[in-house]
Amino acid sequence: MLDCIIVGSGPAGISAALTLKANGKNFMIFGSPDLSEKISKAELIRNYPGLSNVTGEGFSAALKAQLAEAKIEIKNEKVAGVYALKEKFSVLTQENNAYESKTVILACGVESIKPIDGEEAFLGRGVSYCATCDGFLYKGKTIAVVCTTKRLEHEIVYLADLAEKVYLVALYKDVAPMPKNVTLLKKIPKQIAGERRVERLVFAAPPAENIPADLPVDGVFALRECIAPTVLVGGLEAENGHVKTDKNTATNLKGCFAAGDCTGRPYQYAKAVGEGNIAAHSVVEFLK
Amino acid sequence: MLDCIIVGSGPAGISAALTLKANGKNFMIFGSPDLSEKISKAELIRNYPGLSNVTGEGFSAALKAQLAEAKIEIKNEKVAGVYALKEKFSVLTQENNAYESKTVILACGVESIKPIDGEEAFLGRGVSYCATCDGFLYKGKTIAVVCTTKRLEHEIVYLADLAEKVYLVALYKDVAPMPKNVTLLKKIPKQIAGERRVERLVFAAPPAENIPADLPVDGVFALRECIAPTVLVGGLEAENGHVKTDKNTATNLKGCFAAGDCTGRPYQYAKAVGEGNIAAHSVVEFLK
Repeated sequence: MLDCIIVGSGPAGISAALTLKANGKNFMIFGSPDLSEKISKAELIRNYPGLSNVTGEGFSAALKAQLAEAKIEIKNEKVAGVYALKEKFSVLTQENNAYESKTVILACGVESIKPIDGEEAFLGRGVSYCATCDGFLYKGKTIAVVCTTKRLEHEIVYLADLAEKVYLVALYKDVAPMPKNVTLLKKIPKQIAGERRVERLVFAAPPAENIPADLPVDGVFALRECIAPTVLVGGLEAENGHVKTDKNTATNLKGCFAAGDCTGRPYQYAKAVGEGNIAAHSVVEFLK
Repeated sequence: MLDCIIVGSGPAGISAALTLKANGKNFMIFGSPDLSEKISKAELIRNYPGLSNVTGEGFSAALKAQLAEAKIEIKNEKVAGVYALKEKFSVLTQENNAYESKTVILACGVESIKPIDGEEAFLGRGVSYCATCDGFLYKGKTIAVVCTTKRLEHEIVYLADLAEKVYLVALYKDVAPMPKNVTLLKKIPKQIAGERRVERLVFAAPPAENIPADLPVDGVFALRECIAPTVLVGGLEAENGHVKTDKNTATNLKGCFAAGDCTGRPYQYAKAVGEGNIAAHSVVEFLK
């Protein structure tokens, strides 16, 4: 069994990984080989001690080189769920793999795009965050996909292959050519509606030519860079929309720590890196 | 009046300074032009995100360049006391200057050498931390000086000029040639003793030839890189020997924040830098 699983490859996750490595721990870090979209897109970072006026690209390159030097590999799987079992955690990925670990560090960031009204209420009843997990449920049906990042475009294509009809709300630039059964909508939906299950995606105005503002769908996929930690981890306590942690980055779940943007403001690299470091030390202490 | 005074020029203080600067705040940072002895002496830093296997010297040089670029000057005065007044702080230095500020960030590190038994009990009654503040009280008298850093050697010379006789316990290497009335002792004292005031410095065994283990002195100067924060700031709450802070780095004193090693373990650059960043944001929030 692993000593620790780190969820997220932003500055907090990387800081935790470097420190766990320095402490000889057996761990995995899940994330993207690109580390973090937010870092790469940062224009100029002015207040990160040690790197003067570094660009996001430059910071990202430095981190990648450092991970390579420390022989830390980012596991390119998307975590779909973290389950606190008796004295261990089970981590499931959208690639349908399961991993076990004594501790978990959540460093999954925050999604800057707000959830759609009704999204959390219909989760598991027509709303899904995982194409590969739930796609087969919508074979031959009509679905809407709200996607926030180009990195997950392959999941849209996967869903289009299963569903009869896909309405796509793409919240990013340069959408790739899509299969014929995908219709691109140019408005952001304001609500997911229905009785017991999802029945309609509601817009303030018709979202495209010949498409009604009250659009009938069988399901809605919300594909985001980060799943809200409280959705990811059952029983996790939140506070003001962030994971509730103490000074040592401990959450309400024993052995589960959290670091970086997901624990709250300031959303800053230095803060994230600091909490990642503390979380790793808390894990080392916990494992004793 | 200043928006903020930062006490200490290690990674926590520098991180706070960079972030206050980025937020356009009017502040001063007190410390050493060498930043921090501890950084410079670090052999290799393996887990600071963004700088792979950097030496202490290299990290220090990067920070100095960054401060110069951001036009932040370290005020080379030693803070002797911080006083919480009504809605402001008064900061006194050993150079006999007073500064006023709306907020304070304590980033003064931890002293790795433990206080001598009796030191805190006799503070102000024969024990002093400041040669220039209290030296004149010992004109023509016999004193002991316990000094932990070469950087404060000039204070020993200053005291030797005033006192009749100085016994020096130097806890660092390469002690410079001293005036004739200075006797170097080679043992660490175990206790400061006396009735109402300091009367004797007690060793486990004679600390040098012809010097008794129970050495009569009129006063003891403890010259350290950092003064304990609870000694520095009246009324500051401590916990397990460190400044008690919450997740936002707030102490029990309104407007007084703390960051870095002085708030507790882990004693790590990433952690210090993270807390410095949070403290600066807490100051910005407080000033609103």
